[in-house]
Formats: sequence, structure tokens, C-alpha cells
Amino acid sequence: MTLTGNLLIGQRAVPGSGDAIRAIDPATNQALEPAYAGGTGEHVAQACALAWAAFDAYRETSLEQRARFLEAIATQIEALGDALIDRAVAESGLPKARIQGERGRTCTQLRTFARVVRSGEWLDVRVDNAQPERQPLPRADLRQRQVPLGPVAVFGASNFPLAFSVAGGDTASALAAGCPVVVKAHGAHPGTSELVGHAVARAVQQCELPEGVFSLLYGAGREVGIGLVSDPRIKAVGFTGSRSGGLALCQAAQARPEPIPVYAEMSSINPVFLFDAALQSRGEALAKGFVASLAQGAGQFCTNPGLVIARQGPALQRFIAAASEQVHQTVAQTMLTPGIFSAYDAGVGALAENANAEATASGQPAQGPNQCQAHLFVTQAEAFLGDPALQAEIFGAASLVVACDSDEQIRQVAEHLEGQLTATLQLDDADLDSARALLPTLERKAGRILVNGWPTGVEVCDAMVHGGPYPATSDTRSTSVGTAAILRFLRPVCYQDFPDALLPQPLKHGNPLQLRRLLDGQREA
Amino acid sequence: MTLTGNLLIGQRAVPGSGDAIRAIDPATNQALEPAYAGGTGEHVAQACALAWAAFDAYRETSLEQRARFLEAIATQIEALGDALIDRAVAESGLPKARIQGERGRTCTQLRTFARVVRSGEWLDVRVDNAQPERQPLPRADLRQRQVPLGPVAVFGASNFPLAFSVAGGDTASALAAGCPVVVKAHGAHPGTSELVGHAVARAVQQCELPEGVFSLLYGAGREVGIGLVSDPRIKAVGFTGSRSGGLALCQAAQARPEPIPVYAEMSSINPVFLFDAALQSRGEALAKGFVASLAQGAGQFCTNPGLVIARQGPALQRFIAAASEQVHQTVAQTMLTPGIFSAYDAGVGALAENANAEATASGQPAQGPNQCQAHLFVTQAEAFLGDPALQAEIFGAASLVVACDSDEQIRQVAEHLEGQLTATLQLDDADLDSARALLPTLERKAGRILVNGWPTGVEVCDAMVHGGPYPATSDTRSTSVGTAAILRFLRPVCYQDFPDALLPQPLKHGNPLQLRRLLDGQREA
Repeated sequence: MTLTGNLLIGQRAVPGSGDAIRAIDPATNQALEPAYAGGTGEHVAQACALAWAAFDAYRETSLEQRARFLEAIATQIEALGDALIDRAVAESGLPKARIQGERGRTCTQLRTFARVVRSGEWLDVRVDNAQPERQPLPRADLRQRQVPLGPVAVFGASNFPLAFSVAGGDTASALAAGCPVVVKAHGAHPGTSELVGHAVARAVQQCELPEGVFSLLYGAGREVGIGLVSDPRIKAVGFTGSRSGGLALCQAAQARPEPIPVYAEMSSINPVFLFDAALQSRGEALAKGFVASLAQGAGQFCTNPGLVIARQGPALQRFIAAASEQVHQTVAQTMLTPGIFSAYDAGVGALAENANAEATASGQPAQGPNQCQAHLFVTQAEAFLGDPALQAEIFGAASLVVACDSDEQIRQVAEHLEGQLTATLQLDDADLDSARALLPTLERKAGRILVNGWPTGVEVCDAMVHGGPYPATSDTRSTSVGTAAILRFLRPVCYQDFPDALLPQPLKHGNPLQLRRLLDGQREA
Repeated sequence: MTLTGNLLIGQRAVPGSGDAIRAIDPATNQALEPAYAGGTGEHVAQACALAWAAFDAYRETSLEQRARFLEAIATQIEALGDALIDRAVAESGLPKARIQGERGRTCTQLRTFARVVRSGEWLDVRVDNAQPERQPLPRADLRQRQVPLGPVAVFGASNFPLAFSVAGGDTASALAAGCPVVVKAHGAHPGTSELVGHAVARAVQQCELPEGVFSLLYGAGREVGIGLVSDPRIKAVGFTGSRSGGLALCQAAQARPEPIPVYAEMSSINPVFLFDAALQSRGEALAKGFVASLAQGAGQFCTNPGLVIARQGPALQRFIAAASEQVHQTVAQTMLTPGIFSAYDAGVGALAENANAEATASGQPAQGPNQCQAHLFVTQAEAFLGDPALQAEIFGAASLVVACDSDEQIRQVAEHLEGQLTATLQLDDADLDSARALLPTLERKAGRILVNGWPTGVEVCDAMVHGGPYPATSDTRSTSVGTAAILRFLRPVCYQDFPDALLPQPLKHGNPLQLRRLLDGQREA
């Protein structure tokens, strides 16, 4: 298909009338056609009205219908072929293989949620049968299921133009829950967004769903973004991005006459703890693994390892030397946008000027515009504990090693950290006791804890948690990756003494959906 | 035991040093001894420090240990005997039988959560085994469990001095989740609170738990209440009370450097829909049932039926006449506090002066201080749709009938309602289609929907939802009654590639707790 620059309000392609943006190829700084004129408050209202009109019908689609819809989206995205890959590469500066992999992940994610929808476990059906003879009072018949919250506003992320964007994890999990979705595309990849948006819209049509199930808007943060979050018909928000962006949405959501939940995945520096025996026995291998994780994709991952914590001594010195050598060999890579590159540059500059941090190694210099030169810094635990600036996230391939005096100081540093998406432990058998002692702190600080791996790479599966205490996310009770992401968009409703004819399918006495209900306190086999 | 008026900070009874309050017997307006001097910011900090110190140990108690602790609390409360009943009656003005029933409910609730803890279902264990051979990338071993959020601040409610107070549903579910609890007692029943607080503290000692697992504070809302919610060691809040009180806590929780979830159950008028055939066939019986529910306990229930919606016509006129007769016969009952009585009086006065509402019936006049005279008002749907004052909650035995022109206007009124804890349908078989048409709206508006019952009376069971869209609660995804209340105080953590020796019990490869895990996408039998 030819890109048009139009908004997509339900099935209708509509030209925007706000300020226009064009995507920039960050590898060349060239603007890409077409122009995307921003939506207005009126467009926001139209998309929300359609979403609201679609909600009651969409949420009562059968599990099979909804699963097929998710699968149809995946198929439609695959049918876009190389046009999607080429445009996403041009808009993001990411290598073709990475974008191809991301497309695979996006479609697998949609199909995984189709499996989740079919299983019906997320309905969490609970039945307490009537006990008419109970003394002193009879018990009513009580049945509970989960229902979707309502239309969801999804904000595309810059760093995953497919997997965390128009048809990414937030959209897939909201649609799976039965919520219509209005997406605000990220300004870095409007063309990719338009292509994927049309794929979703075709799936809507093919599955004969109400058109308001999906809309796609472009435009400025204030008018379109805050407008969406403030619209009374929007009942929840999914966002991946900066802390300032996420907090602005949280504030708008709280200021509404009816506040709504915001799931903002914001800021994390992903500490890596190197324990003594591991550092002694395989410091050089650790340095290689660490820098590979740090530099992958120019470090533009929420789970990039921005902090390394270890006991000082010769083993740590050897690790720093080996890591510095690796960093030094790292070739500069194009970042996603000129804005992200500037922010990285400013963050690294501030750290370089911080008297508490020593610049230890730099990667190969840039050969073109917007290229990320990797950096490694070292500081002492005492300085780290006293200087909050040292735990500010630098989005890109920069990391800071914190040298500690003792296990106790390592624990203090861990306790001093803000909430994180991940914490990583590099350990040998002899380190198990030290790791065990640190674990309670890390469980309070992070959503995912890894042993002898690296935090980049987030599996889409049942057990994944891509979340964590504030400010990693605005809602620590949730994950934005993995099948549990569907739980963010649901609320329980109890039905008391309903005649069978009036009960929704999942709650009927005959259990026609064959769900494993919690029946009178026992889980059905 | 003799009441002392002391705060309870862990195992230590400490005199407060703020302004003192005494409970008032609302039946006589007499102050009851002893005086309860309020806590200070320093007391708040001490209780929170103890709770924080206890957290890591308490959350790793075994399921059996924690279940026994909850059962020990119930046993200790029962051991208080008539002293507890007598004091609660004197402080609340509630009849003895009601308080005895509430004690039974409170202890059953604690034992129900013991059953929930033992089952371990709330851990929601998910295991995705490693797939080392997977192409293009191997999959790590990923395991998820739920962990408690941290220390919880619980605010006692005025209207259930036992079941929604010191050892009520919020405390029981937070302790079940593994969270230490700091309670701020309600000023209406400090003596009842002290008795129950000591029962909990004795259970803490008996079970050899760290003392910080439970503390009990008295004092003014600002210094103690907001102080608690603002303390960085508090990680969630449970509250039942007024909308203004709940919103103040929500604002304090959002203003923290690390915002935390607040579960505030606030405001609901619990609409009752009378469908045509039911109104025709049994209007008089409905009137009796309605007024019994309205007047029970002087109407001091969150689920009191404050709104009746029906089609106008002779059948509704007969219902109003019969209900008026019932209201007229209703004897005035003592309310919980002079403050609640004044607010009721003011609310009824405002409605009586509202030109849109007609005062139709009043109950027997008061015979003593703080007695609630029942009231019934009638309005037209058009007026109701235009006047937000008509859906303000009046806490007490007052209700408003809304007469509608048509099914469509009934739907408009339903759509116009704020979020509710409950919605009730009175219907006969001939009304099923009308009810079915209204159901989607009610599912979006209420946490519990009842057929041919009355909303007062909230069962503690698995399927109960005592929650609902804002402003019924501040977090529509939750229930404060029933076993699902435990889910409010949990967050997921993922463990990646952990050696078995380092995994927490629920996640170990051998499944020593015999949990029904979600294992590689399948629920274990």
C-alpha cells in the first residue's frame, strides 16, 4: 500500500489538520515522505466515540472470535511483507535482521494472546453456590468473572517500532481483554505505524467487528496524547517511554473527574551484581557478555545494563580493564532519532563532568549522524550513595561501575536504588550465600531477577515480568510483557442470584465454556 | 483487660501525646473513658520502622505459619468475650445481636483467609521451562510468583467497628498477603480498637512473629492519617469511608516521591431497578423488602439502597404508597456518631429543599439523641438527569425514587449514574428482555449486580465483589470483601535461570508446596 499520511478513525482514513511531522531517517538525517498532519481534539473525540460505541459489542464477542481477530492481525502484518521491514528500517535506523526478528516477535505475541483468550483462565471465574439452608442466614448464589475496563489509549514506543507500538504488547493485551484500542503513534515511525494500523483495520473488517475497535492517531503530545488520556470514554492507558512522558500521563489520568489506571513503563538502569567468586573465575568472560548486552542495539533497551556493582579489588580491576577494552572496540551505531541521540549525548556529558564518576573507556567514534559512542564510567559506592544524579537513566550504550568496600556496602547500594525492571546476579557456587543475603532487597526493588544472564532480551511467555516498583513502572502490580499483561485491563463483577438465562456464558450453571472455575472454594480439575 | 488509652507500637503500649479524644455513646451523648491521646509524627515513624523491619521476615513465613497466625487472631478476638461486645455496643449504638454477628463474621473472615493462604493459589505460580535448543534463540528458565507489596496502612471504618476495622477485611487480606499492617483506628470506637489491637498483638507474640507485623495508632487525620500514607515505608493503603476522606488519602499517595496504590471504598447509592412485571405482580412485597433493606442498621451500610428506578404508572404509584407506609412505621434508630447524624440530617434537609425532589414519607421521629428518622423522596427522571445533587450519597436511611417515562429513559438514568458498589434488578420472567438490555450498562457501572434480592448484606466468599467503578472505589480493579481482596497487596516477580538452591519454595523445580502451577502454558491438575 502507498503511505497516505492519514489518521485512521475506525475504518475511515482522515487527513489530520494539526502541525505536520515527517519521519527522519536517523542514518542520514533525511526527512521521509509523506507528511503526517497531526490530529486535533475533534479527531480524538471521534476515535473515542467510536471506541465507546464498539465496546459493549466487542467485549461480548466469543473467546474464539476474539482469538481469531488477534490471529488475523498477525496474518495481516505478515502480509505487509518487505514494505513494512524497509520502512521500519528507514525510520528507526535499526538493522534489517533486528526488524525482521521484531516482526516475528510481534506476530508471535498476538498469537500467544489468542491462546490466552481461548483458555479463558483470565476470566478467573469463581462460583459460590447458594446455601439456602445455612444458619443463621442463607447464602445467595454468587458468581464472579472479569470484564474489560473499557477503551484503552496505547502510546507507541520509540525503541520497538513493531513490538511495543501500534500492534505491540499493550494493544494485543488490551484487545485480548476485550477493550477497544486508540493508538497514538510515536512520531519517530509514523509510516511503520500507518502500515501496521491498516493491517489491524483490515483484520477488524475481515472479522466483522465494529469499526471502533481500533483507531490510530498522530500528533503532538499535548493535544492528542493528553486529550486521549483525558477523554471520559478512555478507561486505561498503556505507555512505554520516558519518565517525564509517563508522569505527564499519570497526572492527566489522576486529574480526570474519574481517574483511570495508567500502565507506564518508564525508567530503569538494571543493576548487575558481580559476586566475588564469579568475578575471580570468569571476569573476562563477564566483561565480554556485559559489553555485548550494553552495546546491543546502541543500548536502546529498557533493560539495558546501566549499572554494575561489585566489591573492589584486583578482580574488579581486571573486569574493568577487560570491559574497557570491549567498549573501546565497540563500533558506534545509529540511534533511533536525533532527539534520542541528543539526550544520550547530554547524559554522557553530564556524567563525564561529574567529579564523582571517572570516564574509563569510550567506544569507536561516530562515523555518521546520530551515532551512539559507547561509554564506561567508574565510581565508588560512597559517592554513589551520596549523589542521586549517578542513578539517572542514560538511554543508550553507557554504563557505570560502582566499586564497593564490602558485602554490606553492596547491600546498601542495592537498598539505595530506585525501582527497577531487572536486577542481574553473576555468581558461582561459592557466591550462593552472598546472593541469598541480597535477594530480599532485590525482590523489593525489581520485577525480574536473573542469574548468570544479561537483562536485555525479554521473553514473551507466561512467567515474564516486564514491570517493577516505581519509577520502573507507574503500577508495580503489573507487567507489560508476557501473558499476564492482559490482567491490567480487567475488573471483577459479581452476579448474585441471577437466573441462568441472564447469566453471561462463562458463569452459566452448565459451564458451557468448560472453564476451570473456583467452585465452592475448590479449583475444578 | 482494662482499657489504657495507649497506642500499640509493635508489642509496646505507648501513651500518645497529641490531642485526646474520648468515644461518645451515641445513644446518650455521654463520653466514655478512657481518653485516647493522639499519636504524633514520631509515633507514625516508629510504627512504620518496625513494620519495615518485620517485612522481609514476615513475608517469608511459610503458608502454614501465616495461616495459623490468622487463626490465632480470630481465637484471641473470641477470647475477649463480652467485654468486646459491650464496648462495641456502647461506642457504636448498634444492637448487641448485630455486634455479635459482626464478631462472628470478622473471625470467619480471618479463618477464610487462613484457608486462602494455605491453598497458595494467590501465588499464581507460572513456570516456563528452559528451551536450550530453541531456534533462533534458546529460551531461559522463567518462573513467576506473587510477592507482597510491603507494609500496609489500614484505616478503620465507622460503620463496622469489627469487620471493617482493626482486624477487619483490609487487615486480614494484607496480613494474608504477607504485608505488615499499621492501623489507624477510627475515632468513633477507640476502645473496641484497643481491645482488638491487643488481641492481634497477642497473636503476633504467640506465633513468635516480629513485633512490627502489627501496630495500632489513634489520632487526627492530618498528622497520623496523612503521615502514615506519606511514610516511604508504607506501600499500600486500605480505607473505607467518605469520598472526601478517601480522596485526601489518594492525593497524599500520589504526591509521594514513590506513589502507592490506595484502595478506598468511598461512595455508592446502590440503584434498585424495578421492572414492570415484577412491579405489577408484587409491588407491595417489593416495598416491604426495600424498606427493610433501607432502614436496617439505620441505613448505615455502603450498600444501602439509596435510589429506586422504575417506569411511572399505577404500579409504581402503588409501590410508592406501600413503601411510604413502611417508611412511616420505621422506628428511629441511633446512628453511629453525632457527626454521622448531623451529616444525615444535613443531607436530608438539602434534599427536602431541592425543588426537584418531593418528600413522600418520613419515619417515626427521634426519641433520643442522634436518631435517624427514615425518609423517602420521589423525583422525575428528567430532573434527575439534570441535577447532580440528586445522586449525592446520604449516609443513612433515606432513598429517592426516580420515575421514568420509558425503558429508554431508564437506560439513560442508568448511564448517567456514577460508579456503584451494587445495582439491583427486581424482575419477573416477563422482564428478562428488559433486564438483558440494561445489563451491559450496569456491568460498566457496578461491582456487583443482584437479581431479586437487596444489596445490604455482603457475603465473605470467593465470588464476592465489594468494589466498583470510581467513585464507589478508587481502584475499580479490586474488591475489599471476599478472598480476592488479597490480590490488592501483591505484585509479580520473575526469576530467570535461578539455581534450585536459590529459588523460593513456591518456585522450586520439585514443586514442594504442590501448587497448581501454570506450567509451560498448561494449568497443572
